[in-house]
Amino acid sequence: MGKYFGHATCVLRPRTTQQVSEIVKYCASRRIGIVPQGGNTGMVGGSISLRKEIVLSLGAMSNVRSFDPVSGILVADAGCILQSLSDHIAPHKHIMPLDLGAKGSCQIGGNVSTNAGGLRLLRYGSLHGNVLGIEAVLPDGTILDQLSVLRKDNTGYDMKQLFIGAEGTLGIVTGVSIMAPPAPQASNNLFLALPKFDNVLPLYQQVKGQLGEILSAFEYIDRTAYDMGVKHGLGPILNLDEVGDAECFVLVETSGGNNTHDEEKLNILLESLMSADESLINTGVLSQSPGQFENIWALREGLTECVQKEGKPYKYDVSVPLTDFQKVVDQVRERMISKGLYGDHGITKVMGYGHVGDGNLHLNVIAKNGYRPELEEALEPFIYEVVASHKGSISAEHGIGSMKTDALRYSKSDVSIQWMKKIKQVFDPLNIMNPGKVLP
Amino acid sequence: MGKYFGHATCVLRPRTTQQVSEIVKYCASRRIGIVPQGGNTGMVGGSISLRKEIVLSLGAMSNVRSFDPVSGILVADAGCILQSLSDHIAPHKHIMPLDLGAKGSCQIGGNVSTNAGGLRLLRYGSLHGNVLGIEAVLPDGTILDQLSVLRKDNTGYDMKQLFIGAEGTLGIVTGVSIMAPPAPQASNNLFLALPKFDNVLPLYQQVKGQLGEILSAFEYIDRTAYDMGVKHGLGPILNLDEVGDAECFVLVETSGGNNTHDEEKLNILLESLMSADESLINTGVLSQSPGQFENIWALREGLTECVQKEGKPYKYDVSVPLTDFQKVVDQVRERMISKGLYGDHGITKVMGYGHVGDGNLHLNVIAKNGYRPELEEALEPFIYEVVASHKGSISAEHGIGSMKTDALRYSKSDVSIQWMKKIKQVFDPLNIMNPGKVLP
Repeated sequence: MGKYFGHATCVLRPRTTQQVSEIVKYCASRRIGIVPQGGNTGMVGGSISLRKEIVLSLGAMSNVRSFDPVSGILVADAGCILQSLSDHIAPHKHIMPLDLGAKGSCQIGGNVSTNAGGLRLLRYGSLHGNVLGIEAVLPDGTILDQLSVLRKDNTGYDMKQLFIGAEGTLGIVTGVSIMAPPAPQASNNLFLALPKFDNVLPLYQQVKGQLGEILSAFEYIDRTAYDMGVKHGLGPILNLDEVGDAECFVLVETSGGNNTHDEEKLNILLESLMSADESLINTGVLSQSPGQFENIWALREGLTECVQKEGKPYKYDVSVPLTDFQKVVDQVRERMISKGLYGDHGITKVMGYGHVGDGNLHLNVIAKNGYRPELEEALEPFIYEVVASHKGSISAEHGIGSMKTDALRYSKSDVSIQWMKKIKQVFDPLNIMNPGKVLP
Repeated sequence: MGKYFGHATCVLRPRTTQQVSEIVKYCASRRIGIVPQGGNTGMVGGSISLRKEIVLSLGAMSNVRSFDPVSGILVADAGCILQSLSDHIAPHKHIMPLDLGAKGSCQIGGNVSTNAGGLRLLRYGSLHGNVLGIEAVLPDGTILDQLSVLRKDNTGYDMKQLFIGAEGTLGIVTGVSIMAPPAPQASNNLFLALPKFDNVLPLYQQVKGQLGEILSAFEYIDRTAYDMGVKHGLGPILNLDEVGDAECFVLVETSGGNNTHDEEKLNILLESLMSADESLINTGVLSQSPGQFENIWALREGLTECVQKEGKPYKYDVSVPLTDFQKVVDQVRERMISKGLYGDHGITKVMGYGHVGDGNLHLNVIAKNGYRPELEEALEPFIYEVVASHKGSISAEHGIGSMKTDALRYSKSDVSIQWMKKIKQVFDPLNIMNPGKVLP
């Protein structure tokens, strides 16, 4: 985004946990700040040296320590790239429990440190459930070895959880033990046009009920986003006449163990949707080939790039209760209109898409002719206030980094922030570990 | 088990979080110890007043605060009984993500505080993934409100995770927000006899591969346990001739959305097992009726009661890597034989059963003619040492309570224990919150 510039005078690339420990001990003795850096693919400036801290890159620690094809438990150095880990376990018919656009660069240690979400969360849950253990170097150089390969272990406080999502402010994750699910043997998808947003939730309920355990994605795209995608050459997946005045679209994906069974379930679902007296959808299509399957995903995944082509985007990654999903988008658009900032001179598009199943909305506000301070002022903290009014999260999966420290209070109470500070103080009294990140 | 006796002179039953806060403030001002108590169904003396601390029962806080049938997110007072919550959401076609034998008495706050595992963990994962938020009263009376209903929220440290499994030593959980999965529409099971333990892991791998997303339980029973069950009137599920000299048994359960599909998958599995050149099983049966389904589960679930009938049991709830499952049982039996303590005068049976899928072994050592100090001395710390040598957990799901504080070091390093103590010190400097539990 061209938003952050690093100021590190030095980058260290240790090869072992022991070396990380020695570096940290040295830095602690001289109060030198450390920015732990994984694949450097974050969106919120969490892995950037803002104040000349040294950068400690985990990139040279990239060995798989073990993989058990029976339990699916993988133990790896923090610097292993997510895609490499996927490749490593694929021959054993397992997949990583998370999948991100950045998978070719992002590292598992960074994934854990930022509690990365992504496309598989609906099916496999969050890293708080999938990470079985971590090894971390604490801000005094101590190595905390909790690299358990056990699925169940109720012996005291689950300390590792604190490091999941701490963005390197409590210590440096150097190793990860993670549970990989068996690879599904069949994947299918379905693309639906809905007359109005109000139908999304009843649809989600019906889809969950009928597809049950094979449902692996339920993605939402509003009309503005869909039309933008089509304009830039994505899709069109559906016949324009049949789409009619659809207000929004839904992509449903299944992953299962038997293609015949899965297709049957999807066909029954589509038929029952089509033949209902008051249909929840205008039209829909079930992918009939791997090519069509890819096309449907390409529309959803291509939106980010289209947004860049449309102008300068203000991007927000928020969580709100499902009922409030589209309201947030509409409130922002109305705000810009009422401020006289909507149009070619200001904001040209406000759109929403995202993981409805997870309550995670990607809100994109586009300024065709570039960023302007008065636009940002009209958007922030307004959007954070709107999200807070819906009891949402101002950062569903991207984290806080250095970008949102001042906005943390919109999602966390004073008591919560005060306790986070106490935890930070216990682990890192010298404030050398990724200073200026997460906490205001 | 007749092992713990409470010494509380006073039991308080607050009705609101505010009342809990006031009680805690009062106790803090006078340094009065508090034992938070849910359903009092724990196995390790975690909810017992050992030193005349007051008991703070959550039983009068039993309101469901909200349930959203679209997202499946349930918010409830800590004192809600697990079974009542199941009943509450059943009409909306959802189930609780955990199921325990104690469900008729245990409370959701206690479940969270002890990180309860149980029968559904293989399918739905642990509470660290399923609990979305908690409300807790801290040891100074502050109310920490993190009762989020969001599936994704990456705004700072995930403090609530510390309370999951802290057994009430960091504060009192007063409310829980939890994700309930959609109810499966079909359940089936399969009971298999295996010639030898070495076949369990290849079988588990094959079952995971063929059943994939519908696999909901993979339970192990060794021959000693099976024969004991049959002797006490359970089963017999299988024809004795066909069982032959099987060393162990496996119960496989599926839960899915379409009974025809699930039965087809199970039939294909059973046929491929039966017709293999070197079959992994001696024999097996697929339940053909709800009655037979129940019978198969009754054998597995009835073992605990049979153990009581056989004599006085020493019970261990451990986690070990799957490969070492039966080794632990055999090592303990050999130990007792070599010490001359095996036989009617000492230990009469050593058996193992449990959740193989989770790596969780219930090791039962039976003294037909009663407990004797020299038996316990021969068993402990030997069993903990064996578990530690396999890098296992000395408490997979039961927790530490007051029973295993001295054994904590077999599963957690000095560094880990030292950091747990620091965390305890930050939250509870006066040591009034469930003192004497969890930490040595």
